[in-house]
Formats: sequence, C-alpha cells, structure tokens
Amino acid sequence: MTVESGHKVVALISGGKDSTYNMMKCVQEGHAIVCLANLFPITKTEIDSHMYQSVGHECIETIARVMQLPLYRRGIKGKSIETEMEYKENEEDEIEDLYVLLKTIKEKYPELTAVSVGAIESTYQKNRVEHVCRRPDINLTPLCYLWKRDQEELLQEMFDNGIEAITVKVASCGMGESHLGKSLKELFPTLKKLHEKYEANICGEGGEYESLVLNCPLYREKLEIKETKPVVLTRDEVAPVVILQIELIPPKITPLENQVVLVE
Amino acid sequence: MTVESGHKVVALISGGKDSTYNMMKCVQEGHAIVCLANLFPITKTEIDSHMYQSVGHECIETIARVMQLPLYRRGIKGKSIETEMEYKENEEDEIEDLYVLLKTIKEKYPELTAVSVGAIESTYQKNRVEHVCRRPDINLTPLCYLWKRDQEELLQEMFDNGIEAITVKVASCGMGESHLGKSLKELFPTLKKLHEKYEANICGEGGEYESLVLNCPLYREKLEIKETKPVVLTRDEVAPVVILQIELIPPKITPLENQVVLVE
Repeated sequence: MTVESGHKVVALISGGKDSTYNMMKCVQEGHAIVCLANLFPITKTEIDSHMYQSVGHECIETIARVMQLPLYRRGIKGKSIETEMEYKENEEDEIEDLYVLLKTIKEKYPELTAVSVGAIESTYQKNRVEHVCRRPDINLTPLCYLWKRDQEELLQEMFDNGIEAITVKVASCGMGESHLGKSLKELFPTLKKLHEKYEANICGEGGEYESLVLNCPLYREKLEIKETKPVVLTRDEVAPVVILQIELIPPKITPLENQVVLVE
Repeated sequence: MTVESGHKVVALISGGKDSTYNMMKCVQEGHAIVCLANLFPITKTEIDSHMYQSVGHECIETIARVMQLPLYRRGIKGKSIETEMEYKENEEDEIEDLYVLLKTIKEKYPELTAVSVGAIESTYQKNRVEHVCRRPDINLTPLCYLWKRDQEELLQEMFDNGIEAITVKVASCGMGESHLGKSLKELFPTLKKLHEKYEANICGEGGEYESLVLNCPLYREKLEIKETKPVVLTRDEVAPVVILQIELIPPKITPLENQVVLVE
C-alpha cells in the first residue's frame, strides 16, 4: 500500500461486510472517516443494479447513528445502461447518481481527499467508481483495501477483526431460505463447501449472498434485531432468491448534545 | 492477545500519543470506543501527579469534538498519597478521582465492559488503574496494548499508523525549549540519541516529555494551532522543565444535527 496516511474519507456504505471492513482498513491505515454515502433504490423492494447492493438499506440510517457519522443518501434514478466493462459517460446511467451524490458531499466537505470502496473482484464496479473519482470536481483517491484479496482469507480476517454479520439475501446454487439471517461465521464452512463444489465466491461477490453487519469496532452500539421476515423474490429449486426484511430495535445512542460532562 | 473482540470501551485520554494510540489499537482489535474520560488539574498550571499527564488538558475538549465522542472530565481533588507500588485504598488519594469518574460513566453506559489505558512501562500507574477496574461497581477489563512494548519500535509504529504529535512538555537531560512544539517524528533521532546517552525513555514514560496528538485516524478533522507560548516551570541548566501553552483554531466540525441528508 503506497497511499500516504492522513486522508479524510467519505465511505461508500451498503451496510454489508465489504464496505464496512474497507472502512476499518481505512482507519487501520491511518485515514479518518468523515461521512457516509449511500445510494438506495427508490422502490421499496430490491432493484436489479449491476453496481449497488440494495438489501438492508432501511438499516443504513441506524448504522449511521451507531457510527455517529453524517449520512448522505440518494435514490437511484438511473439504470444499468452502459454495461460494457469500461464506462462511457451517459446521463441516464446509474453511475451518474454516484457522481451527483459525491459532488454534493465534496461541496459540503472540501477537505475530503479519498473515498472508501469495498470492491473485491468486480472490475466493472471498480472502473465505474474510478471514472467518477477522476472527474475534476470530485478528485478523490479511491481506497480499495479488499481489492483482489483471497476471499477465504479475507472473510476469516473480517471475523478476526470483530465483524459480526448475517445474510440478508441468498441467490446461489445450494443456498436457500434456511441460510438466511444466519451469521456468516456460522455459514463459513458452508460457504467454503459451495466454493469447492460450484466455484461460488466465498465473499458473495458474484451476488451469491448479501450481508448486513450487526456489530463491528466502528459501531458504538451493536444493532439488535426486533423482527425479520423472509421475502421470496424468485422461486427456483436450485438457486431461489430470497431477501430478509429486518426491523431493528432503535439504538439508545443519540446525537451528541452535551459533548463535555463535568463530573463533580 | 487473548481478549475477545467486541468490547464497548471507555477510553482514558490525556491528549498524548500513548492514550490515543491505545484507542487505535482497541479499534484495530475489534472493540469500539463509546466515550472518553479525562482527569485534569483544578489549578490552571500543571500539578505534580504520579498518575496523570496534565499538560495540554485545555485541548482535550477539542479532541473530543473532532472524535465526535462524549467526554467525561473530573478535576483532580486527591493527591499522590499512597505512593507504594501496590495501592491501598485511601479516600484522599488521587486514584479515587479515577474511581468517581469511571463510576459515573458506568452508570450512564452500563454496556461498557472495558477501559482503554495507554500505560507502557509504569507498573505504578497500571496497578492503580487495575485496582479501580476490579471494584465490583466498575468491573471493566483494562485494555493495555502498549504494555511492555519496545519503545523505539512502538513510536515508529505510531508514526506508521498515522499519529502526528508534538511535544508539549520537556523535562529531560539534553532537552530544552528548542525541543518544544516539535513533531515527534522530527525529534525521533534525538530521542534515540538521548536513550543511548542517558537511558532516557524513547516514549517519555519517565516524564522526559509529554505530547499532544494533532492528527490521527480517529480524528475527523486535524487540530490546527493558532498560537503557542512556552512557560518555564523549572530553570535548570541540565534538564529545564518547560511546558507549551497552546491555543487551537476552533474545529469546523459540530455535533450532528441532521444526521441523514437526502441528496436530490
């Protein structure tokens, strides 16, 4: 890693393990997270985006609260139009939503110099984020600490570093409703087996599953689940697509009012 | 390190590099900092405490702001009375101030399970903190990641991990006003030389110097100095004691009001 320490960072966050762990790596490498950025589908159910994880997005605002960070969100207006590996600017494309979001944030926080991106394998995703970051009115260095990491090693490292996550979507050969809402630590042997059998990505980078981080060192309070409800999107005997709707217990943490308390 | 990850931590903070770097280690090891605790001298100038660093204490409130963490402070009412290596409870001792402070915090945040302590060498200091932590109404695990570390290696590691600190007190053979307000990185060769020559502690654990962290990955904004003024406490040809009074530029960061911003 040749990036100098001391970046002030806006973090792209989905609520899943990859974007969260990349933020932890940013902190470990000497950078500071200043605010969070999230793109969400405008419809209440999941959209078919090539770029963005969308499951669990209702939990994002709670995550910002337990991280005590400002969160900037934008509904995805564009679509996956320019689907070639290299991105060509197209006003209608969903990647322009990322541009508008980052531009707004950069205006608010001119001190920002980098953006945290949790991409592991998707060159498609990485090319597009870099395309936006390079634009002169954005000019942010992408920090992608998970890029091309061995996925089994990476997932183990996430557990070792205090990431507690559950699955909130399954869409993979050999996975079904019974694997939903389970802790990734518990599913780790299954994920390794599915990798051997079907070459499934252990970190779910091919869309095999999506995760929600319930606890990590950057959360000042652990998220507690009140209720869950599985919703079947695609009935398929081999690889059904099921998402988990989650209602969280509101966290106790509130924005700081009296930052300094004098104890007599 | 055998401590399990997932502690919610109150961090003892002096503004110096050791307490700050130990907080960073807590985060790296899978724990979350929930609030800050600081003891400060009631008089405006430095007190002669065997326990607590007191220089730069006016900067502590600014540090809490750039960390966006609640800060609990208490003026030191007790004195260094029980100065034997093992501490015996004494109402008049300054260690009881730590007890009152942690007890207040624990009542406010019952979820806390650990306390971050930046001690490196001082068994005196560590024994006393542990004495308080063991009491049933406190019951916090001390997390001391710097304990007994090689000091040269440790200081280098702090630099590598993004700690930017300056000296705010000098009180050591071979150091004087000219070494005050300098970055520790810049002073590193000098500190190593003084270690070889006089066996001075490279991290200043014997009171050789005290530091103030101006930037680190846990700060959302770097501290900027407006003005400094050296104050000579002891005129001594060999080892004068000089502290640096610092006025900081108020940080831009404010407590969160609108945590979630929707970007249209």
